[in-house]
Amino acid sequence: MHPLDNALELESAGDDSWRGRTLPEWANMVGPFGGITAATLLRAVELHPQRHGQPIALTVNYVAPIADGEFELVTRLVKTNRSNQHWIVELSQDGEVKTTATAVFGLRREGWSDTEIEWPQAQAPEDIEPSVPPFGVVWFDNFDMRFVDGGMPDPAGEPTESASSTTTLWVRNKPSRPMDFAALTAVSDIFYPRVFLRRGHFVPAGTVSISVYFHADDEQLAAQGDGFVLGTARAHRYSGGYFDQSARLFGRGGTLLATSHQFVYFKA
Amino acid sequence: MHPLDNALELESAGDDSWRGRTLPEWANMVGPFGGITAATLLRAVELHPQRHGQPIALTVNYVAPIADGEFELVTRLVKTNRSNQHWIVELSQDGEVKTTATAVFGLRREGWSDTEIEWPQAQAPEDIEPSVPPFGVVWFDNFDMRFVDGGMPDPAGEPTESASSTTTLWVRNKPSRPMDFAALTAVSDIFYPRVFLRRGHFVPAGTVSISVYFHADDEQLAAQGDGFVLGTARAHRYSGGYFDQSARLFGRGGTLLATSHQFVYFKA
Repeated sequence: MHPLDNALELESAGDDSWRGRTLPEWANMVGPFGGITAATLLRAVELHPQRHGQPIALTVNYVAPIADGEFELVTRLVKTNRSNQHWIVELSQDGEVKTTATAVFGLRREGWSDTEIEWPQAQAPEDIEPSVPPFGVVWFDNFDMRFVDGGMPDPAGEPTESASSTTTLWVRNKPSRPMDFAALTAVSDIFYPRVFLRRGHFVPAGTVSISVYFHADDEQLAAQGDGFVLGTARAHRYSGGYFDQSARLFGRGGTLLATSHQFVYFKA
Repeated sequence: MHPLDNALELESAGDDSWRGRTLPEWANMVGPFGGITAATLLRAVELHPQRHGQPIALTVNYVAPIADGEFELVTRLVKTNRSNQHWIVELSQDGEVKTTATAVFGLRREGWSDTEIEWPQAQAPEDIEPSVPPFGVVWFDNFDMRFVDGGMPDPAGEPTESASSTTTLWVRNKPSRPMDFAALTAVSDIFYPRVFLRRGHFVPAGTVSISVYFHADDEQLAAQGDGFVLGTARAHRYSGGYFDQSARLFGRGGTLLATSHQFVYFKA
């Protein structure tokens, strides 16, 4: 099974309750990659028999590190409206909450549409060397990342500060896999902490909250196939031990698939 | 009492529970102004005896319209870590959930800091006429808004489409009032739906989810006093009946006080 689908495999454990487990291949420095956790919480709602429509907006709060092993997911349907639906999801281990999320699902309607931003200028992914993660973060191997700009600092080199916090990269699942909302959720957290780029070296950092807005519908995701997504992210302010970063993910043909925003704890 | 403080006045109704009520002076087209609802949910956590630190990040989901009258707030402390704390808040009326929120509170630490964006070029607020709301939305009267760019379409005039979705304005409470986290939360939702500006006329629209990242600490807010905040907001994509808008709020001297992001339902 594909490593993404493997991680998203949840077993029903009663009404509104699912059981899953961490996988060694998604390990981050502490606990699993935040993007796979976010995708798993979204998947729990997708699996729910009362789910109405597609993902519209998701916010995930990282409460405490997830330990290696099993976890329980509880989904609570707060309300179903005519065109949308509100959920609260919690991930726990041994009765202790590790992650919370709120999700809005809904029906999309035809109507006026427009995109105000263009995708960044970038060489074709085929013309860029796949990136080799500069240290042993296991989950990197589940993605084919090709940095257009703002690659990760080299921990073996001299720290080089950057005036810009922007990273632009091509990314797709490795092995490649068709795009869906769960995969898009994982990719929306693909950008390493912007403070690493600005400071030119690694510092302790961890996301406290991420929000994803799904601009694409399932047809636009299906049209994406298993191709590369072009993503770009930047920060706005670092202060008091927190900074924000905002990301844009474009699909084939320049379709803006999702925007995401997160607030990150750091120590520097 | 100041209209903002009046709205934020909550009465204890047992452990983790508060009672409040809508006020006619904060009325929007349907229910109260979303910004005052967000501020009220934040205030419930601020009032909690177990609250640890200051607001860091807040996400509010608008589940169903709030009716005129009383409401109940329930705060749930999910977890207190060494430096931060996670909350879930719900607003209900007659047992029906109308709004949910997740909030991260925490301690800020000294360290490396930087702001990557500059505040927009703008005339001084004293040189701009205070805006007169073009229709009877009551809550507008609780703010002194001075539009630098991207003012609200005139419903009496011919619809004029705009290529840009950017609004930049000076805003402060009316009557003026010292800035704090609750006031900043309300202001982060001050921007009317960007689709109005693009289309040149009003259409049905309502926020489904808003996230606020608090970049300023309480000292930086206190330094702001009761002065004008310079805010700017724009959209990225409109599709399937939803669009996003992102806002930046700058204080006196160009301090980036908060960034906020929202996803909005619309019909056009």
